[in-house]
Amino acid sequence: MSQKLNTPKGTRDFTSFELKKRDYLLNILKDCFKAFNFQEIQTPSFENLTTLTGKYGDEEDNLMFKILSSGEKIKKADTEALKENNLSKFSNSLSDKALRYDLTVPLSRFVSQNLNNLSFPFKRFQTQLVWRAERPQRGRYREFLQCDVDIIGESNLLNEVECIKVYDTVFKRLGMPKVNLRINNRQILEGISKLMNLDSVNEIASILDKTDKIGVEGVMNELKNKNIKDAALNKLKFFLDLEGSNEEKIKSLRTEFISNKISTDGIDLLEKIIITSEKFNLNNVDLIFDLTLARGLSYYTGTIIEVSSPSEFYIGSIGGGGRYDNLVQKNNPRLSGFGISFGFDRIFLILDELNLFPDELNSSKSFLFLNFGSDKIDNLLIFIDELREKNITCELYPSDIKIKKQMDYANQRRIDYVVLIGEEETNRNIFKLKDMSSGDESSFDLNNIIPEIEKLS
Amino acid sequence: MSQKLNTPKGTRDFTSFELKKRDYLLNILKDCFKAFNFQEIQTPSFENLTTLTGKYGDEEDNLMFKILSSGEKIKKADTEALKENNLSKFSNSLSDKALRYDLTVPLSRFVSQNLNNLSFPFKRFQTQLVWRAERPQRGRYREFLQCDVDIIGESNLLNEVECIKVYDTVFKRLGMPKVNLRINNRQILEGISKLMNLDSVNEIASILDKTDKIGVEGVMNELKNKNIKDAALNKLKFFLDLEGSNEEKIKSLRTEFISNKISTDGIDLLEKIIITSEKFNLNNVDLIFDLTLARGLSYYTGTIIEVSSPSEFYIGSIGGGGRYDNLVQKNNPRLSGFGISFGFDRIFLILDELNLFPDELNSSKSFLFLNFGSDKIDNLLIFIDELREKNITCELYPSDIKIKKQMDYANQRRIDYVVLIGEEETNRNIFKLKDMSSGDESSFDLNNIIPEIEKLS
Repeated sequence: MSQKLNTPKGTRDFTSFELKKRDYLLNILKDCFKAFNFQEIQTPSFENLTTLTGKYGDEEDNLMFKILSSGEKIKKADTEALKENNLSKFSNSLSDKALRYDLTVPLSRFVSQNLNNLSFPFKRFQTQLVWRAERPQRGRYREFLQCDVDIIGESNLLNEVECIKVYDTVFKRLGMPKVNLRINNRQILEGISKLMNLDSVNEIASILDKTDKIGVEGVMNELKNKNIKDAALNKLKFFLDLEGSNEEKIKSLRTEFISNKISTDGIDLLEKIIITSEKFNLNNVDLIFDLTLARGLSYYTGTIIEVSSPSEFYIGSIGGGGRYDNLVQKNNPRLSGFGISFGFDRIFLILDELNLFPDELNSSKSFLFLNFGSDKIDNLLIFIDELREKNITCELYPSDIKIKKQMDYANQRRIDYVVLIGEEETNRNIFKLKDMSSGDESSFDLNNIIPEIEKLS
Repeated sequence: MSQKLNTPKGTRDFTSFELKKRDYLLNILKDCFKAFNFQEIQTPSFENLTTLTGKYGDEEDNLMFKILSSGEKIKKADTEALKENNLSKFSNSLSDKALRYDLTVPLSRFVSQNLNNLSFPFKRFQTQLVWRAERPQRGRYREFLQCDVDIIGESNLLNEVECIKVYDTVFKRLGMPKVNLRINNRQILEGISKLMNLDSVNEIASILDKTDKIGVEGVMNELKNKNIKDAALNKLKFFLDLEGSNEEKIKSLRTEFISNKISTDGIDLLEKIIITSEKFNLNNVDLIFDLTLARGLSYYTGTIIEVSSPSEFYIGSIGGGGRYDNLVQKNNPRLSGFGISFGFDRIFLILDELNLFPDELNSSKSFLFLNFGSDKIDNLLIFIDELREKNITCELYPSDIKIKKQMDYANQRRIDYVVLIGEEETNRNIFKLKDMSSGDESSFDLNNIIPEIEKLS
């Protein structure tokens, strides 16, 4: 029974030390979302597979953690599929639920289910765990916290502007260095894919998305292997190589798409979003029109954005989002949505490395009453009870082991003050208080114990 | 694609209205745990099966939500086991992880893994979700929040007393009616099972636990079906029928167990816990020695406690816990632990039905700026930005639809004040403020917009 016990691959425990920092970050996010008047919701950790599958893309569907059916249901196992090595069919016969893969698809289910009780535009925020069976890397875990804001039922570009400002406000409050917020539009990418004679940009989106990692040449090579024709690749390369300011890129694009209404609409929208956002006093984000941004998830239909980590960090994006017109069920028209996500764990990592967490995350003092024997604790229990009523952190050492060992515990737990009421103190009707950081010890009238401790707390 | 979308059986969504109440309850629990100087930890949502299985009991093991292995691993499916209808073997070949079933076994894994970094006694609190594939009932869900405090590495009875006081303090802060806290000791039950010629009380624990639902007669009938002899049943009935005060029950027991050291130790301990706890000013719990209390989970070895819901509610226990001597791995001796759990959802239900949630859970005011057209919003964006910097909740309606519709939105979202700056107001350099609860409208100098709104927020 002395086997090695560990957390599963890609998951972590958090100690109180880490949780105080996590709470600090989470509270800044939530306070900010509330100032923007987003409403919080929470959804279950798992959803029916019918809700989740087919929304993200095939590759992503395979990265979901599925829940094994229980009891008799497991008899439905499709062993034929296993024999035929059709693993995804086999696995679907054993499961009808999966852990959340993101917060957007559960939101769309929530809205579809509560259409009649919600007022639109529905602005919601959600900070919950999501799970992905990916290979763990620095800043990337299999269980991680995602923090999302979305606006459903409105397609006005002010929604995009509002969410860009959410990023800016959060990063400013955290004291982060300025970051690049890359922006693009799926309609423009659809225009490019049409010029390339593809059916949809989704055919190349996940490869295109690697541009910041493998460069334009790397993308070209990967696409070549996917049997995309040279003429099409050259067309694409022309767009990916476009340089200059946002205005210059937009101008070059207009000449290319003169006869493509959908893409021209996309360009107009993108231009307006950039201009309007800049009126909003952006302090911590630089808006950069980036044609190489594609966003892997297949549900995006319009504006897409992604926030890069500050340049000295190589942990990929720290947030992203976009517009999705087809997620929320409602007959004609479906409700359009726009939303963004904060990569909590990667932002945490940056704050930690840049020493951006405040020094004093918990300023309330703690008190340990030493235990001088079970015959001497009756009064202590009463004192402790009174102090806790005042929300003062205190405790009695739970056994009367040697005082030295009790003091060791106080040191290890970083207790601020130790309270001593032994035989001598009881006889003299006093208590002693030892300041554990300075080592100073002082005596006080036992009748004043509550106000004296309250003064220090 | 217009299929019915729902949350999976036994799970729920939470709206912002419910979450404000849940936050209130959770904060009282956490503040109280902190006043007792427990340290927070969090563990992953799933654990390796080797960590979880064999700790709770066979029945409970079957109620775990297992995670289906992904990718090639699923080829390990033991189809022979399926043919032989050995479903549990088949299911174990398809999974090596499961969702948390409680917080105690993950804690014991955490402590075993971090033995060298922790100082003992290790007092931790944890408020996280757990999952059980049970039949959903009122107040019982398949995904629910558990709130635990445990003390590891100490077997002094003051730990039991401390945790009993945690219950008392939380219930007092919540303004709950007085509840019964039933207490028993597994060593006494082992003594009884020995008198019944059983190997261990675990053979009858889960049936014994039903006494408050089906009565002593019901328990006798179920045990008869389990082939327990009449003589043994009569012995048991004698104990279950014991009546009177805690002192009277303890006295009767002593005469029965005169020659059984282990059970006598259990009785002594129980008596001391009751006496010491009562010195601690218990306000909201009545301590009741109850021989029918067994606690289903098989890891308990000493004191066990359970809190009944107030008598007018029929939702079972709202908390429970006990001592476990064999969970935390460490060679000779293993570390003893004692811990309790709060049934968050059931306590929520009671607070809700008794109207114990404060009326004003969110006192900060919200402001909606009406949208009079995209050519008139530039200033509004600046004002809104300044107000949000001051953490004032405000927003711009995201499109310039009819003012009547924008006002409907303000009503539905329970916005406190609407800010109007249309053509006329701009020309006169004023803004209008409409109080949505009274309907009153007033005009102010536009130059004072920030301080005027700040005054109201």
